[in-house]
Amino acid sequence: MLGRIVNGHQQWLCRELSDFGYAVARQVAVADTAADITQAVREALGRADVVLTTGGLGPTSDDITRDEVARLLGRKLFEHAPSLANIERFFAARKRSMPASTRVQAIVPGGALVLANGHGTAPGLAMEVNPNPFRPGGMASWLIMLPGPPRELQPMFLEQVMPLLRKRFPLDAPFASVTLRTIGVGESILEERIAPHLRPLVTEGLEIGYCARTGDVDVRLSGSGPEAARLVAEAERVVREQVGGHIYGTGDELPESVLVRLLTERRQTLALAESCTGGAVANRITDVPGASVVLVAGVVAYSNAAKESLLGVNPDSLSSHGAVSEQVAREMAEGARKRAGADFALAVTGIAGPGGGTPAKPVGTVFIALATAAGTKVINPFNPVDRPTFKYVTTQQAFELLRRELLGL
Amino acid sequence: MLGRIVNGHQQWLCRELSDFGYAVARQVAVADTAADITQAVREALGRADVVLTTGGLGPTSDDITRDEVARLLGRKLFEHAPSLANIERFFAARKRSMPASTRVQAIVPGGALVLANGHGTAPGLAMEVNPNPFRPGGMASWLIMLPGPPRELQPMFLEQVMPLLRKRFPLDAPFASVTLRTIGVGESILEERIAPHLRPLVTEGLEIGYCARTGDVDVRLSGSGPEAARLVAEAERVVREQVGGHIYGTGDELPESVLVRLLTERRQTLALAESCTGGAVANRITDVPGASVVLVAGVVAYSNAAKESLLGVNPDSLSSHGAVSEQVAREMAEGARKRAGADFALAVTGIAGPGGGTPAKPVGTVFIALATAAGTKVINPFNPVDRPTFKYVTTQQAFELLRRELLGL
Repeated sequence: MLGRIVNGHQQWLCRELSDFGYAVARQVAVADTAADITQAVREALGRADVVLTTGGLGPTSDDITRDEVARLLGRKLFEHAPSLANIERFFAARKRSMPASTRVQAIVPGGALVLANGHGTAPGLAMEVNPNPFRPGGMASWLIMLPGPPRELQPMFLEQVMPLLRKRFPLDAPFASVTLRTIGVGESILEERIAPHLRPLVTEGLEIGYCARTGDVDVRLSGSGPEAARLVAEAERVVREQVGGHIYGTGDELPESVLVRLLTERRQTLALAESCTGGAVANRITDVPGASVVLVAGVVAYSNAAKESLLGVNPDSLSSHGAVSEQVAREMAEGARKRAGADFALAVTGIAGPGGGTPAKPVGTVFIALATAAGTKVINPFNPVDRPTFKYVTTQQAFELLRRELLGL
Repeated sequence: MLGRIVNGHQQWLCRELSDFGYAVARQVAVADTAADITQAVREALGRADVVLTTGGLGPTSDDITRDEVARLLGRKLFEHAPSLANIERFFAARKRSMPASTRVQAIVPGGALVLANGHGTAPGLAMEVNPNPFRPGGMASWLIMLPGPPRELQPMFLEQVMPLLRKRFPLDAPFASVTLRTIGVGESILEERIAPHLRPLVTEGLEIGYCARTGDVDVRLSGSGPEAARLVAEAERVVREQVGGHIYGTGDELPESVLVRLLTERRQTLALAESCTGGAVANRITDVPGASVVLVAGVVAYSNAAKESLLGVNPDSLSSHGAVSEQVAREMAEGARKRAGADFALAVTGIAGPGGGTPAKPVGTVFIALATAAGTKVINPFNPVDRPTFKYVTTQQAFELLRRELLGL
């Protein structure tokens, strides 16, 4: 509630749930106070078949979710011996003494299924609330409480919570969905190009959702019922016919994972030479497991001296064209490709801002070069946005330049 | 609701609001359906003095927030000529034709203050709901609707919404807060070390909050009332006495911004040599405006060949110790420092996983070296976590190694 942390759990959990076919009705975040937690859990139990909570199970004094939920549901708390043993093992394995405050995490409400925490100390809890005093007719709900740290929550959810949900809450009807990830076309234009062609399928029950970021838009096609799979498959075919060249991937695929896959399949390699993106291209490529097979080397050459010594850029090019120029981008890419012995090299030089702009080369100016065995291409987009957005958008454009080259688009 | 996007708005808005002294009572996210939007806005108007909504003002068919809110409040919609002119200007400036669907964004409810959008097409809207039919006694609330894209929302909020809130909702009592950002000490240990000393201030009204990430913990000290500033200042002094060496910054400061500031003040420079972090260290440093003054160059040397050619690592060291070794980390740092002519160089080599581990060097093994004029230090943490966490934690450790060197800790 203080804005110190991004709520990545809501995103992650919603994606896992909606990809399986469950509808997430609401996401709520409240402060760590007894009144706020109790009110939010009570309202959620009044609305939904399943309520998931995250966080508030830890050892510090503001971790009160377990106690407040037990009070709300009128359940006694007791110490759960296997959970205490797990906490003791956790500290012993790390050769650290166990702080006394940590023991509270082994306290669980009566009647709860205890979800073992393989990556931390606080166990998760799953409780059937039946009868459910907050729902019309006392209709049962499940309340599932998960620990806050992502690397504890995520495996616990996938290995223990999803099997429980699938068993207790099988889908009413077949569900199908696909997310097509597009780049290089705005949300309005995209809808104008695909929506008229999808209209017949929409009347049959197809649902279309758009999610726009800066410079890329997801199109999610989904449906429920006996015809769901056919509807979604036909809709995907229609969208690919209309805007196929803009679709870089499906589902969770990222441009960088697509590139690592394509290069790995072709046994080709990549080198990078970055100025204004400052390592963002390399960082995203190396986020992909297996990137080491395709990425030979990257150079972050902010200074002119580094451009000369690490990439072999001609000092005359720097003085006559300036560091932010088509010529220097070209030489950075060609230098990186040659020195690393790679099949391809991407180079980026530009003005990320907020400082450094001039009337001739304002903030947002950027040159992206792609060196290949056949020659070097340079594009010159204009990204007059804030510094983080500049780095993101420019990185996307560099990835798209290489994707189009690899696919001959 | 589908988990395709992280809700960064909630974080950003909460931070802006709470740093000023406003209490955020609840964060809610719902699907783009009329029923869900209407229910969420109605409930929020029943609870709060101010309700902020984000998104749903765009041109596509799922952007229905404006229409649904007008219906809920019984307000007529009309086309707002200055907003239409702004949309036309927006497309003209980009030499793009204006899609017909875009015009709907100039439609606004009667009685709304229209917030001009300097960075996009949909204007924001601010409405006093008075009397407020959803609140006991009809007590007035403000409903403020903001566009979804961050680079439209953020300037609109800072330049137009905050001045409105400060004028309409001045604070009841002085408010003070400080966030101390710590690294290298766990949440439990941190609380054990500081809480006993803060107890007298807590009885006077001091509030303490902890926010733990992986390897770093924020401590927020706040208070309200005539004594707020004194309480918070005394609490900060106490915490600094107990764990001062672990505090790398305050407020929104990041380790990378602290390093750029320290190096800039000292007119010293940095070079980087990264293997397993794959550009993450460079990327974070160059996220900081002004980083170009301190960062001379960075090298991402995944392959042994790149370690030799770009950093001058001895082939014998690679073959006898392996790429992930103290000796190679040392040579990477010394090579980067020498070749870049920098005052300091950080080097990282390790096994991020999921593949590549061996019994002797399992996934999570890492060596971080810092080369200085006085010699080279190497640390050998063990970070057996998933790949993104590994990159984050290792980067934090590298930054902390340099911070301690710069401050003589």
